Parts: sequence; structure tokens; C-alpha cells
Amino acid sequence: MPLHDLIARLPAGAVLTDPDLLATYRQDWARDPDAGTPLAVVRAGSTEEVATTLRWAHEHRVPVVPRGAGSGLSGGATAVEGGIVLSTERMRAIVVDPVTRIATAQPGLLNAEVKRAVAEFGLWYPPDPSSFEICSIGGNAATNAGGLCCVKYGVTTDYILGMEVVLADGTVVRLGGPRLKDSAGLSLTKLFVGSEGTLGVITELTLRLLPAQPRQSTVVASFATLDAAVEAILSITGQLRPSMLEFMDGVTINAVEDELRMGLDRAAAALLVARSDAPGEFAAREAEIMAAACEKAGATEVFHTEDAEEGEAFTAARRFAIPAVERKGALLLEDVGVPLPRLGELVTGIAEIGARNQVTVSLIAHAGDGNTHPLILHDPTDAANTERAHRAFGEVMDLAIALGGTITGEHGVGRLKKAWLPNQLGPDVMALTQRIKDALDPHGILNPGAVL
Amino acid sequence: MPLHDLIARLPAGAVLTDPDLLATYRQDWARDPDAGTPLAVVRAGSTEEVATTLRWAHEHRVPVVPRGAGSGLSGGATAVEGGIVLSTERMRAIVVDPVTRIATAQPGLLNAEVKRAVAEFGLWYPPDPSSFEICSIGGNAATNAGGLCCVKYGVTTDYILGMEVVLADGTVVRLGGPRLKDSAGLSLTKLFVGSEGTLGVITELTLRLLPAQPRQSTVVASFATLDAAVEAILSITGQLRPSMLEFMDGVTINAVEDELRMGLDRAAAALLVARSDAPGEFAAREAEIMAAACEKAGATEVFHTEDAEEGEAFTAARRFAIPAVERKGALLLEDVGVPLPRLGELVTGIAEIGARNQVTVSLIAHAGDGNTHPLILHDPTDAANTERAHRAFGEVMDLAIALGGTITGEHGVGRLKKAWLPNQLGPDVMALTQRIKDALDPHGILNPGAVL
Ligand SMILES: Cc1cc2nc3c(=O)[nH]c(=O)nc-3n(C[C@H](O)[C@H](O)[C@H](O)COP(=O)(O)OP(=O)(O)OC[C@H]3O[C@@H](n4cnc5c(N)ncnc54)[C@H](O)[C@@H]3O)c2cc1C
Ligand SMILES: Cc1cc2nc3c(=O)[nH]c(=O)nc-3n(C[C@H](O)[C@H](O)[C@H](O)COP(=O)(O)OP(=O)(O)OC[C@H]3O[C@@H](n4cnc5c(N)ncnc54)[C@H](O)[C@@H]3O)c2cc1C
Repeated sequence: MPLHDLIARLPAGAVLTDPDLLATYRQDWARDPDAGTPLAVVRAGSTEEVATTLRWAHEHRVPVVPRGAGSGLSGGATAVEGGIVLSTERMRAIVVDPVTRIATAQPGLLNAEVKRAVAEFGLWYPPDPSSFEICSIGGNAATNAGGLCCVKYGVTTDYILGMEVVLADGTVVRLGGPRLKDSAGLSLTKLFVGSEGTLGVITELTLRLLPAQPRQSTVVASFATLDAAVEAILSITGQLRPSMLEFMDGVTINAVEDELRMGLDRAAAALLVARSDAPGEFAAREAEIMAAACEKAGATEVFHTEDAEEGEAFTAARRFAIPAVERKGALLLEDVGVPLPRLGELVTGIAEIGARNQVTVSLIAHAGDGNTHPLILHDPTDAANTERAHRAFGEVMDLAIALGGTITGEHGVGRLKKAWLPNQLGPDVMALTQRIKDALDPHGILNPGAVL
Repeated sequence: MPLHDLIARLPAGAVLTDPDLLATYRQDWARDPDAGTPLAVVRAGSTEEVATTLRWAHEHRVPVVPRGAGSGLSGGATAVEGGIVLSTERMRAIVVDPVTRIATAQPGLLNAEVKRAVAEFGLWYPPDPSSFEICSIGGNAATNAGGLCCVKYGVTTDYILGMEVVLADGTVVRLGGPRLKDSAGLSLTKLFVGSEGTLGVITELTLRLLPAQPRQSTVVASFATLDAAVEAILSITGQLRPSMLEFMDGVTINAVEDELRMGLDRAAAALLVARSDAPGEFAAREAEIMAAACEKAGATEVFHTEDAEEGEAFTAARRFAIPAVERKGALLLEDVGVPLPRLGELVTGIAEIGARNQVTVSLIAHAGDGNTHPLILHDPTDAANTERAHRAFGEVMDLAIALGGTITGEHGVGRLKKAWLPNQLGPDVMALTQRIKDALDPHGILNPGAVL
């Protein structure tokens, strides 16, 4: 493998081969213990450098794992032994066009950086994964990331009007563009969104923006039972469209409280944080409706605030849930979703799976979307416990599928959930997927082992 | 071709072969004079009948043109000589789930029927092509239809969570489903949306719904120049997100007024109809802002009403624009779109193209999206005039491409705009498109001659 040839074709410093540095690019946030060691890391500075790398890799049949900020939770950016990790971290430009209300961004820019850049023009890029300060916009597009405001504002794909992509053989294509409506040809832009680096490397994004989000009202409610919380969720979504509707169970509340000490009710079985951004006094009115729904469902405590900062503190607590639970031990992170009416069965079933397998499960949810994150705690030094945790991990996905749900609502399949994908999609959809993969990447250069 | 074999496999009455009946399925609304005569029309009553038809067609290599309600404007449903027209008109069931806020609909249901069915549950299916009473929801999905409320609420793809599709060889696959978020596998649902019958036949749709739309305030403004109207459009979209922002030029105003006699200003160069559905009194406030923007841009008359019926009358007038102009003569229908800041150049350029080619052009626009419909009037009995009209038709698309725009914002490429598609997409994207088409339909059974 003439790596020196690739090094010669790229600017000085673009290719890392130092073993210590390579080690830091082996895993994403899923920390897959089976991650390989890459041959090299390419930190591309431009589309042309991405194309050069892919042309070289294609010629020599070297696998390439695209990597944004490495915050992925399903091992989508796990390094492949002897392959290239192609990082976008140096590609961080953004241009905002306030008239068309779009931004053109390079993929390595963090989600939070996009939000800040457009906010200067009084604009808003809605998708807000909890990881917004540590994930890239390119990674968001590649995973079709969700977040907290998605219950009202939709997911990443809803905000992508176009992109530039480098295909497996190094061809650069432009798809879509700064047009609010475009029906010319197949919806290729949308196909690349959520393709987890298996079809191409995204080198530029055209993002649709909204006017700045209005100020939000916030309701925080504690419940003595999971059932009561689920009842409140369904009652709220049946009456209006909250701008946020998030859930934490008792294990999570305690983990967050251990870190933040903000006075959450440690005895509660569940906590909901619900917000409304309806204009003017309508936000407060919607918050009242949500507060009443919580009370009616039997909430033990309901708190309603018009203070944006106070509301933001509870939102930040919810966002901090995964890191807080991570401090309790190693995690297997799930991302199962179900049609909303099945949410109660999913939540109860997850608790049963935890109990049956004698593992602690912390449950977080983007509740308004029916999308939950069971976090399965385990002790990697205890083989029996780890085995039970892995069994529970599979059972949770089996349950979601049985309830007409999905094994992943927003994190993607990556490598960790790929064994369950055929159970959800069935053989015909798997075959269809493989046909598209083969048509676009016949030599399997891009992210081999992910998704398929 | 053993058509009797297909007839035997389907229920009595499903296959039409009577020449008079076949004639009514040769063309869609684009009235392509080069339409072929089909071998037969299959009016499928179920997914299984669609699959049977495609298995037979695949086996015998017979082309199949999927057809919804035939209201398409780009010849996407034009019959292929000796092929099958596969109509979904008999597949019209719908089930609404108000808790998840979704509907499961068969493709032959009209858009208006979907709207009515979900309205019974206090819900709303937003996409509203002007043709909503004569187009099918399957055709909407296949063309990724837009409409009037799209400026605020997005297009058809934004409301499709899942579908059942029959592939070229008769395989039935289910994609996505009643889950508000789903990242499992490639975004295949989105790929089939807008594929104009070239990748599969859509036999069921899972639609995302919203709560009923709030009551709208309406502003109607007349302008003495096109420039002033464009200035008002950009000023409005720069300040807020109207729920509708529609445009008609002088030719169109007169055509509509000839039919409806509602007192539109025949001397005006342009008319805008703008609406707001912000909650409560915010609608009126937004309407005031829009009215002020029109006045500031030099409107000759501005009318503001809170009366929903009165507002609906102007909306209906705008919807009636294409039929009204059609009464003046044969039309070549365009659907070009540009990034909003280029709208002025597009509008001026279209007027110049009309003048240079001595053809009358009526201009309608979903102005807030930058999506315009120049309707080129011509006299099919006058060869020279028809030639000039066709030249103008091409020049309008060339102009849109030169302005960074699209040859079709919402109607699709079909057969009429296919010659211009490579100019917009370029050879690499065309090749990519062909690879996907070949992977999914290697024998070119589905809608041959459309798009590609
Ligand atoms: C604490 C925490 C909270 C989180 N909360 C959420 C949440 O609320 N919602 C949510 O959706 N996710 C969440 N995530 C998961 C993660 O942040 C998202 O999946 C994010 O989109 C990944 O972005 P990244 O830049 O880190 O991508 P990476 O992890 O680097 O890569 C993710 C995948 O995208 C591919 N990829 C990356 N960049 C490109 C590119 N330019 N072109 C092609 N493929 C590319 C990779 O190959 C990989 O398959 C959370 C993660 C953490 C650690
Ligand atoms: C007066 C008038 C106004 C219009 N206004 C608008 C507007 O505002 N916005 C807009 O977007 N369009 C508009 N249109 C165009 C047209 O109504 C839309 O394109 C509509 O989506 C077509 O639906 P249909 O059922 O009539 O489809 P058809 O005309 O029957 O077919 C359209 C295309 O979809 C394919 N197709 C149809 N059904 C299926 C299926 N089940 N599976 C796979 N492929 C299928 C066909 O092969 C064809 O390529 C207008 C048309 C008219 C006549």
C-alpha cells in the first residue's frame, strides 16, 4: 500500500501516522472494544483533498471510514483495521444568506457553531442533538440526527436542501442547492442524509434556516409511576405540539442530581420537561395546558416558569443525562422508538427486561417522538454481568421491533446495531439496500462493516 | 405478449382494453401530442394486483406507466406505446390514527379526500397543490408535490413517514412506518418520494399530520410594476414566514377576472395574495406587517381581511389561474424556481423571453418559495408560433439554470423537461441517477422515457 503516495498528494500535516495520534481516532463515543487501528488518519482541508484521498483509496482498495467529531453512539465511525480514517474536522467554513434564509456549511463545523453563526443574522438552525456542542454538522447529516426540538421542528433531513458529496471513486457531485423547492431528478440529497458514511463523504451542506426561535415557556413535572408520566405525554401530544417534550426515569434523575445538585425529586419515577415556543402569551397558555395535563395524569409536582434561563437549566440537565449516567459505569446505549400509542408498552417492557437480566437500565426519552434511550449499565470486568447486559441490549431492540418500532430513532445503525437491522427491515429491504450500496460503492470502500 | 394471461390473473374488470377507454388514459394534463397508445390499462384494486401486474410485465419485458389521477403537468404519466398504464384510482382506503397523528392512505385517494378524512379528527394534511381536488396522494408522493402552504409548511416529502412500494420485478417492500423518527438503514422512503414512477409503484403511504390549521388573515395587494411586487415579496419573507405568498402577473389577473369577475385590478402588473396563520391575533399582526411591506414597495392597492371566507375566495382565484389561462389557448407549462434573491432577475428575464419570441407568457408563482409557473400560450395550428413557443420554453429553463435555479420546483421532470435535466444536474449526477435506476429496475420496466 503506497501510503507515501497519498502523503505526497496531500498538503503537509494532512496525514497522521503517529501511533499515539491514530489511537485517538480509533473509536467514537460508542467506544467499541473491537475497533481496528487505522493505517492513517487524513484530516482533509478541502473537497479536493477528500477527493484525492478517495481516488487513492479506490485505486488501492483501501477502506475509508468518514469521521466528523466522533460523538456517534453506534460505532459508525469506528476505525477499520488497516483503513483510512477520513476526518472533516478541518473543514469549518460557513456562509449565511439571510435573504434565502440558508447557510452553506462545511461538514466539520460543530452543530453549536452553525447555530451561533446563523444567530448573528437573527436566524435559527433547529436540529439540536443533546451533543450539539461536540458533534459536527456533517455527522448530523450522515446520521440524520434528531434532538430535543424535533418533536415540533423535525429532524436533520428536514433542514438539508443540498449538499456536495464525494463518491467512493473520488467523483465530486453537487445535489440540490439553495432552492426551497426542487423536483429535478431523484431525491439524491435525501438518500445521502442518514447514509452513515456508506455512500459518500459529505463535503458541504446547504442548510434551511428559520427565524430565531421565540422565547419558550417551560413545565417540569415529577411522577410517582412511569404509567402516569406516559399518560401525561400522550395527553400533551394529543392537544398541542410542544417545542420540547423530554423524559428521564428515576435512575437518570438520580445520576443527573448527583452531578448537578439542582434539587430534582430523587424519589420520582419519572420527570418530564416540556416547553412551548408559541408566539407571545400563547407560550404561557400552552404551558398551562401541559401543566394541567401533567396534574390530571397524577403528577406529584408540577412547576411552570416563564423565565427562559430557568427553563434552559432544566433542558441542560436533560441534555446532561447521558454523560451523567456514564459516570456510573460502562454503558450500552440504545435508541429505540415506537409509534406513540405503544410508548407505555415499550417503557414497561424495558423495565421488565432490565429486571429479568438483573442489569440497571437508565431511561431517557425524546418522549414526544416516541424515541427512547435505554442506557444499560454494566461492569466490563464482570463477564457474567456483561453478558446479561448484552442480552438485554438485544432484547430491547427485539421488543421495539415487536411493537412496530425501530431499533434506532436518531443515532443510526453503525456497527453496534447492525445485527438487528434485518429483523426490522426484512430480507427484501435489506436486498434493496445492498443493491443501492453496490451501485454506488461497488468495491465496498466506504465505511465497510457499518449498517450492512 | 400473452395479455390474456395477465387478464386471467386479475379480477374481472381490472384490465381495460377497449380502445375508447384506453384513449382516456393516454395523456396526463400536459396533453403530450406524442403520447403512445397502451396495450391495456390495469386498474389495480390492491397491492397484490399491482404486484401481479409488475411480475407479469417484468417477465414479458412490457413497460409500465404508473398513473394516479393524471393531473401531472410534465408528461410523467404519458402512456408508452404498447405498454401498460397501471392506475391506482381504485385504491382509496384511509385510516387515521389521531394519537400518533398519522394517516395510512392508499395512493389513489385524492389529496382533497385525504384532507377531508383527517379533518374529521381535527387534523390537517398540509401539502396543497392547486390541483388538490383532482390529484392523487400517490401522484403527490411520486412528484413530491408542492402547493400554496409550502412556503411555511414544506412539501410532500416532509409529510411522508413511510410507504409500501412494489418494485419493478413485483417485490413488495415496506419502507419507514408510523414512527416520527427512524434512522434504521438508508433513507429509502425519501428516495422513492419524487421518483416519478421510475423506481417503484407506491401502494400505501404513512402520512404525518398536524393539528388543524389556525384561521388565516389575508392581504391582497396590486402593483403597477413587476419590480415593486418582487420587492414586496422579499421584504415579506425577510420579516416573517407567511402561510401563503402567491403571485399572479397582469396576463393571469385578466384571465382569472374574465372567468370569475371578482373585481381584480385588470390594470395591475402584478397581484400578491399573502396569508398568515399565526395563532390568535398574531395572524392579524403579521398581516399588518405584510400589508405595510406591500405599501412600502409601492403597491397601488392593499386590502387586508380577517374574514376567512373572503381570504379563501382570493386563494381560490389564485388556484384557478392555470385553468383560467388554459381557456385562452394551448399552454406550455413551466415550473422553474430560483434562490429567492434571484427572483427579480427570473421574472424580468421571463418577460424578455416572451417579448423576444413574440409569445404571450402568463406568470404565476408560489412566490415565497422562488417557484414560478410561466405559462406559454401558443396556437398549435400555427407552426411558426408553436416553434417560437417551444424555443421560449427552453430559454426559460436555460435562464433558471443560469440563475442557479431548477427546471422544476414541484411538477417533476416527466417527459417534457427531460432534455434539460442534464444541463441542470451535470453528467456526474446523471450517471449517479442512472446507476440507481439500473440497480432498481435493470430491465427498464418502470416508466421508461420519463426523467432519464
Ligand atoms: C452525550 C451525547 C448525546 C447525544 N445526543 C444525541 C441526540 O439527542 N440526538 C442525536 O441524533 N444524536 C445524539 N448523539 C449522537 C451523536 O452526537 C450524533 O449521532 C451526531 O450526529 C454524530 O456527529 P459526529 O460529527 O460526532 O459524527 P461521527 O461520530 O464522527 O460519525 C457518525 C457517522 O457519520 C459518518 N460521518 C461523519 N461525518 C461524515 C461526512 N462528512 N460524510 C459522510 N459521513 C460522515 C461516520 O462515518 C459515522 O457513520 C449524542 C451523543 C452523545 C455523546
Ligand atoms: C390546474 C393544476 C394545478 C396544479 N397545481 C400544482 C401545484 O400547485 N403544485 C404541484 O406540485 N403540482 C400541481 N399540479 C400538478 C399535479 O397535480 C401534481 O404533479 C400531482 O402531484 C400529480 O398527481 P396525479 O395523481 O394526478 O399524478 P399523475 O399525473 O397520474 O402522475 C404523476 C407522476 O407520478 C407517477 N405516479 C402516480 N401515481 C403513482 C404511484 N402510486 N406510484 C408511483 N408513481 C406514481 C406517474 O407515473 C407520473 O410520473 C397542478 C396540476 C393542475 C392540472
